[in-house]
Amino acid sequence: MGPVGVFDSGMGGLTVLRELRRRLPAEDLLYFGDTARVPYGTKGARTVRAFARQDADFLVARGAKLVVVACNTASAFAIDDLRAALPVPVLDVIAPGVATALARTRGGPVGIVATRGTVESGRYQQLLAAEIGEARVVARPCPLFVPLAEEGLLDHPVTRRMAEEYLAPLREAGVDTLILGCTHYPLLKGVIGEVMGPDVALVDSAEALSVAAAQELTRRGLRRPEGAGRAAARNEGRIEFYLSDLPWKFREVGALFLGRPIDEVHTVNVNEAAWDGGLAGIPARKETP
Amino acid sequence: MGPVGVFDSGMGGLTVLRELRRRLPAEDLLYFGDTARVPYGTKGARTVRAFARQDADFLVARGAKLVVVACNTASAFAIDDLRAALPVPVLDVIAPGVATALARTRGGPVGIVATRGTVESGRYQQLLAAEIGEARVVARPCPLFVPLAEEGLLDHPVTRRMAEEYLAPLREAGVDTLILGCTHYPLLKGVIGEVMGPDVALVDSAEALSVAAAQELTRRGLRRPEGAGRAAARNEGRIEFYLSDLPWKFREVGALFLGRPIDEVHTVNVNEAAWDGGLAGIPARKETP
Repeated sequence: MGPVGVFDSGMGGLTVLRELRRRLPAEDLLYFGDTARVPYGTKGARTVRAFARQDADFLVARGAKLVVVACNTASAFAIDDLRAALPVPVLDVIAPGVATALARTRGGPVGIVATRGTVESGRYQQLLAAEIGEARVVARPCPLFVPLAEEGLLDHPVTRRMAEEYLAPLREAGVDTLILGCTHYPLLKGVIGEVMGPDVALVDSAEALSVAAAQELTRRGLRRPEGAGRAAARNEGRIEFYLSDLPWKFREVGALFLGRPIDEVHTVNVNEAAWDGGLAGIPARKETP
Repeated sequence: MGPVGVFDSGMGGLTVLRELRRRLPAEDLLYFGDTARVPYGTKGARTVRAFARQDADFLVARGAKLVVVACNTASAFAIDDLRAALPVPVLDVIAPGVATALARTRGGPVGIVATRGTVESGRYQQLLAAEIGEARVVARPCPLFVPLAEEGLLDHPVTRRMAEEYLAPLREAGVDTLILGCTHYPLLKGVIGEVMGPDVALVDSAEALSVAAAQELTRRGLRRPEGAGRAAARNEGRIEFYLSDLPWKFREVGALFLGRPIDEVHTVNVNEAAWDGGLAGIPARKETP
């Protein structure tokens, strides 16, 4: 009964971790953020695939019974590799987002906003087109959304202006549903929602992903039983944070994404690893940010 | 008589390479951009120091007779380590920038704009304060300038708006000289100059650094002789590009920074390396972007 492992290119996956904590209060959660090599969304497929494999191996080596790929770019490029290679089930963030969008659309086109890597991979587009046809799928890279979210400019004129520019083709196409295809983007939901208008459903994959994780654990008999009342409180699972770099402004950014402060992290020095062997087995160092 | 090696966290150092090519036409130049792990400016000192050491080792292993640290953040955190460790001379980008600013200032405060890492390191501030006193030094991190430059938004309303916000404290302080303390920032010189006004001297370290490199080579008897007239043209040195990732939009971004197209690059897979041994000795793969 090990922890549920979650990895992301950096801090964005904390929005997924937050949902998992809500949905699965009794589970131990193990987070790895590859903050030393973030972002993945601007980088090529081969690089992302190699990094994702190392990240996942790290979680498995630390006992993860399920690996959740919180990063959309890693999901887009690496999910097949990871499923083939890992000895535990692997969930990606794209399939639940697509399923939610298909349930929410009222027949109009479905839009996707994501990193350049995720859009170039064509993964969202393929899954959606298989159900509703290519003509009803519109994808758009929004490369500045990640740094804007990481800088905490959630409600800044510059963020609004970029949102207007990035989202214009999606508005023109008349999408009725928009997938936020990057774990950073839920932080910008306010601005994106205002620009798209109240009739467009915004799909944040984190919630759908946490439902999928709960189902997967139950189906495989891996789910940790929850208590009730005071027993439930005593039964709350632990969360452990591992990062490959302790970035500047970690306290502010981490709390922003997770929705509460992070008091303790472990750092894993990616440079001490024999990389063909992955990150597993590297001693981690405990730090107070 | 090996090449002059230049490394940067990514593509920004191509602005330095361009100046070196102009100043030292006969030299062979070898560029390494750590595009798989870019940016460095948001990351912690320990991580930057480890990456910088690997980057420099790679250049030395490929025969560099001089290593130029084009990245300000790597210069800020790693220059002492690199000088102690490498068997060849090492030039950083900070000292020439400071020297140029001191020559240009007319007695007013000197400003520095840079990544968060470079500002936090205090390196520019220390070097300047030693000459003109702490009270006349103003530093300001501009974290969004790197992604804005990489997106090619050189003359965009969003870039102007961020410049106004970031530069306001420098204008209020009345700086008469402003160091562009990140290799990406020269691309934004137009907007920065307009916001600061015509009376503020903008210092781009690349030119001063190329002068320092020429002097260092001459002083050590390492400079390759230049021809004259038609001989000079025949005598032009080669440039070789090595990157750890071939990023999306490489053609556009590379040409933007270098000032001309890049037709061929070699990629070095950082994941194939035994990292305690650095990147040296990894087979590179030739690619046409």
